[in-house]
Amino acid sequence: MKNIDYKNGKLFFLDQTVLPNRIEYIHPLTKEDYYYAIKTLQVRGAPAIGIFAGYAMALLDDDKYELKKYLDSARPTAVNLSWATSRMIKAYEDGKDLVSEAIAIHNEDIEMCKKISEYGLSLLKDGDGILTHCNAGALATSEYGTGLGPLLLGKEKGYTFHAYTDETRPLLQGARLTSFELEKAGIDVTLICDNMASLVMKQGKIDAVLVGTDRIAANGDIANKIGTSGVAILAKHYNIPFYVLGPYSTIDYNCPTGDDIVIEEREPSEIKEMWYREPMALKETKCYNPAFDVTDHELITAIITDRGIIRAPFKENLQRIKDND
Amino acid sequence: MKNIDYKNGKLFFLDQTVLPNRIEYIHPLTKEDYYYAIKTLQVRGAPAIGIFAGYAMALLDDDKYELKKYLDSARPTAVNLSWATSRMIKAYEDGKDLVSEAIAIHNEDIEMCKKISEYGLSLLKDGDGILTHCNAGALATSEYGTGLGPLLLGKEKGYTFHAYTDETRPLLQGARLTSFELEKAGIDVTLICDNMASLVMKQGKIDAVLVGTDRIAANGDIANKIGTSGVAILAKHYNIPFYVLGPYSTIDYNCPTGDDIVIEEREPSEIKEMWYREPMALKETKCYNPAFDVTDHELITAIITDRGIIRAPFKENLQRIKDND
Repeated sequence: MKNIDYKNGKLFFLDQTVLPNRIEYIHPLTKEDYYYAIKTLQVRGAPAIGIFAGYAMALLDDDKYELKKYLDSARPTAVNLSWATSRMIKAYEDGKDLVSEAIAIHNEDIEMCKKISEYGLSLLKDGDGILTHCNAGALATSEYGTGLGPLLLGKEKGYTFHAYTDETRPLLQGARLTSFELEKAGIDVTLICDNMASLVMKQGKIDAVLVGTDRIAANGDIANKIGTSGVAILAKHYNIPFYVLGPYSTIDYNCPTGDDIVIEEREPSEIKEMWYREPMALKETKCYNPAFDVTDHELITAIITDRGIIRAPFKENLQRIKDND
Repeated sequence: MKNIDYKNGKLFFLDQTVLPNRIEYIHPLTKEDYYYAIKTLQVRGAPAIGIFAGYAMALLDDDKYELKKYLDSARPTAVNLSWATSRMIKAYEDGKDLVSEAIAIHNEDIEMCKKISEYGLSLLKDGDGILTHCNAGALATSEYGTGLGPLLLGKEKGYTFHAYTDETRPLLQGARLTSFELEKAGIDVTLICDNMASLVMKQGKIDAVLVGTDRIAANGDIANKIGTSGVAILAKHYNIPFYVLGPYSTIDYNCPTGDDIVIEEREPSEIKEMWYREPMALKETKCYNPAFDVTDHELITAIITDRGIIRAPFKENLQRIKDND
């Protein structure tokens, strides 16, 4: 199941807002269709947004400069989005074939995910129990994904894994997307609430934790979906390896430590108002709804990138792969 | 706001199933009314069920032996329920006034909660940030509650606390009941998702964790709502005191360690099907839904009972208060 599918000159994308209940592909025709898909998270995940915007730049007949500006404004904080549209502008100015360039962005992402998946898989054993948090699968990237990549690649190679998926409150990416992806890939998966991770670890069901990342600081601290740092502390307590998977491009060498990463806060309604009958707390009750947290590098067993597996001392070893660039 | 209110010869109870959106008191008339209230969790919390059943035994004209059997069957695993109905049978056989006996059970619970609250408050400072998990307040017991007792008593005495309340998936007792109780008591409270506890601790917002308990083993391991053990591990990591509050009667000296406590599993529907539009995972996706977990005594700073504050070595110190019995 592809999240972005370009075939016979036409682009289709999987509408992630109606998962897991319905599998609907949409064929965008206008710049408004592309904008709406990014804005409303029909297409989500940093790499996926970049790939999608690349195709928009290639396939639409609009003025390229205006179009870049318009698409970038759909999610202004998504670095991959403006990175991809800038690359398409450069290709346009260089007189390159834009469809080929968009396909190149897409293929590079597939290649990157595959490398991460291979490195990650090298750390796992057949039969392992794996805990995941949030969604860093093919829906957020392409083909294998980052955090889920070793599971999906391993499945192809005949490994049997037993995945446990944190539902990931408040937006339930683990329940809605990760358990869906793993189920569809034929991987044994069990959905749990976030607060059950300690118990399944204690019961010996978890041999490794795999998570994606939104940003890696120069000292190896990582930002990822809220709750990730808690899972890392539990893993350390139970002596379970905690692996972070993400592309080399996620390393922000200009960000010295996790303290320099600003945590986005979202609306209280996400916590209080998703329930079937009525809100689950009083209107006047305050909520704190941070979207991310920072996991200290001391809690991380290894960071797995498309350029290899990085272990402590993280600062020195992250610098080394930069110097090899 | 009282959960069970006996006045002018009539009993009223607060229907906890419609909280926090509606405050509705019900006046039960028949044994079926009492049974239904216990069965459907309109009245919940082990001590509260016992108190409620005591009044039922006193106020209903039915055959007392048949009535005890009928009420006990509403929640067969609730120890406090059969304990209270047995005590009422004893009082009946001794020719005691049954209304007075029911009021005595109620008053003893108030007294017990008050003692726990006083001991607990002695460990807190004005201005402290307090994290709670699940609900161990007045709704589950009487007047002050156990886990929330120090906050409610402290408020009366002029303390200012800043409470953070885990929503407590899947059944949301923290959101629905704890944030409601604290808000109504005028205590500053902020609702968070369970997976945000690590971040608020890291940010220095939490000075102590307070939780209730369903069972205390002889070595000091405790069973409580799912997620409690995870919070305890986080508290240890961030060097924050972790306090467990419960009556002396919760100590099970016949249970050597937490390994001897069987964990109740509940239906997957609680995880998947509470959402506003449709289920949040595929029908075929497995869920694991344990209702409790066990927190190792090594993670506990102190156990606070109505007979005093117990610290490590827990086995020896729990034995000592028994010997003083």
